[in-house]
Amino acid sequence: MNIAIIGATGLVGREILKILHEKKLDNNNVFLYASKKSENLVIDVKNKQYKVKELKKENLEKKYDFALFSAGKNVSKEWASEFVSRGAYVIDNSSAFRRDKNIPLVVPEINGNNIFNYKIIANPNCSTIGASIPLYEIDNLYKIKRIIVSTYQAVSGAGQRGIDDLNNGKQGKFPFNIQNNLIPQIDIALENGYTFEEDKMDYELKKILNNGNLKIATTCVRVPILNCHSESINVEFFKKPNLEKIIKRLSVSKGVKLLNDLENNKYPMPSVSDGKDDIYVGRLRYDTSNENAINLFISFDNIRKGAALNAVQIMECIISKCNCIQSYI
Amino acid sequence: MNIAIIGATGLVGREILKILHEKKLDNNNVFLYASKKSENLVIDVKNKQYKVKELKKENLEKKYDFALFSAGKNVSKEWASEFVSRGAYVIDNSSAFRRDKNIPLVVPEINGNNIFNYKIIANPNCSTIGASIPLYEIDNLYKIKRIIVSTYQAVSGAGQRGIDDLNNGKQGKFPFNIQNNLIPQIDIALENGYTFEEDKMDYELKKILNNGNLKIATTCVRVPILNCHSESINVEFFKKPNLEKIIKRLSVSKGVKLLNDLENNKYPMPSVSDGKDDIYVGRLRYDTSNENAINLFISFDNIRKGAALNAVQIMECIISKCNCIQSYI
Repeated sequence: MNIAIIGATGLVGREILKILHEKKLDNNNVFLYASKKSENLVIDVKNKQYKVKELKKENLEKKYDFALFSAGKNVSKEWASEFVSRGAYVIDNSSAFRRDKNIPLVVPEINGNNIFNYKIIANPNCSTIGASIPLYEIDNLYKIKRIIVSTYQAVSGAGQRGIDDLNNGKQGKFPFNIQNNLIPQIDIALENGYTFEEDKMDYELKKILNNGNLKIATTCVRVPILNCHSESINVEFFKKPNLEKIIKRLSVSKGVKLLNDLENNKYPMPSVSDGKDDIYVGRLRYDTSNENAINLFISFDNIRKGAALNAVQIMECIISKCNCIQSYI
Repeated sequence: MNIAIIGATGLVGREILKILHEKKLDNNNVFLYASKKSENLVIDVKNKQYKVKELKKENLEKKYDFALFSAGKNVSKEWASEFVSRGAYVIDNSSAFRRDKNIPLVVPEINGNNIFNYKIIANPNCSTIGASIPLYEIDNLYKIKRIIVSTYQAVSGAGQRGIDDLNNGKQGKFPFNIQNNLIPQIDIALENGYTFEEDKMDYELKKILNNGNLKIATTCVRVPILNCHSESINVEFFKKPNLEKIIKRLSVSKGVKLLNDLENNKYPMPSVSDGKDDIYVGRLRYDTSNENAINLFISFDNIRKGAALNAVQIMECIISKCNCIQSYI
């Protein structure tokens, strides 16, 4: 197979390459593309060298099987159809196609079935992916009515420049210095007082969970942590849920790691989820303000499951043409 | 006047001394007490030296006017009555007396009236103080039904050892390394799955807002920030509120600083509230999940208004025997 990674020098692009190696998918031909300034850069993955090419027509192969985009929505919009015309399934990590009604927005554990019928598949936003799997699992037990989310998002979500900002303690990528600080704004301001990042959670969760009636309110906050997003989530149902049943279900859910023992200091944290594939879920408890609701806390590697791993898993779904979703009765 | 500060070497004790100076209250006799290991330590505040004494009977004066405690609940329980017997008003920053029905739990802007009738007055927990003032102001406009809070609490809330943990990047005060990490547990675990810190918000807000029917669910999270707590708050009312009225009210509320202009990157952050007296409030918007609710975000100096300043303001209320609460019609 010919696999292209577009945006190969970014945090997500490099993680995709690493995951292809871990999954022994790097025995295929892997082509790395980036902007002109990264041309001829060599990326090492476990004794294997990959040379980066500038993304331009002369550098393209005749045929591709997969093109994994992670270079921003403008690059995706400009180049996705070009790769499709060369036979590729395009798996796009940007916001370019997520709201296109004809393009599936996929988290394999939830809706990875039959996606080989599409040529472009959108990867959801990182904070959405993290929330989606536990919420999908819970929703299958008790229909969810309303979700209130407050996020704790790592600087890696803003790429290498976000990491540089935190390490240097200087304002650069973010509107303010993020060292010893937090910023309750991610992405641009919308007219309704929300940010685009918050609106993504709202729109994308509804699409992934296939429930336009779901009620969602999100507050997205950047915190001074290098990697791994966390989220405090309040989930309201139409009736009183059984918390034990929810805990039991999450303990066997694919893509979820239950860490739910407050008394013994076991709960999701960036230091635990860093580098891991699963969404860590814990602090599960009845809501003291509403008997039809619960609270939970999640942490997950936003570069990995929140972006790169999810994209590679989508590729695997297509390769195997398999039933990728959870297999519970 | 004779003013005693008990726990004078801690972060809050030192801040109290600093605030007494700022308010020119250090023209009174100020006596500093701490544990034996801090005896004879000298604390400088603007060219004035204070020598710390061990807290023991031989070192006490015959009479005090005020004793400001910030040395943990055990010290408060042991020594409060001793200082009361020597004529002092005890203002206690620990959790020792907060739930005592005969002792007022005071945030001067809310319930600072007539507290000179009591000899012991409790200072609320830091995260409670921050939320209480904007919520009180909003509650006066539209009766609040339910509050869902997720906190972003600085390491200074755990004292100097918390600050050392973050600076050193080593586990010490906290159960885990807090550098590049967050910890969704503050204080001990309770049987209902909440932490004691979360339970404090629940209990204390009801007492301060004088509304036992208020519904509250809180998630308290320690974040790697040196100083200033922040909180993401969802507020539900019994009917649809007018957001503009709420914003207008908060713009003139005593103890509140409105910073509510997302488009121009103006919102509460630790870098803004650090060292300030007011509770910074912003990100005000209608809840997209419930037309009877709004979201807001606050940030405030937890050592200052969250502890030391509030205690000194309580002292000022008693000195002036004044009407300390907000004076709106």
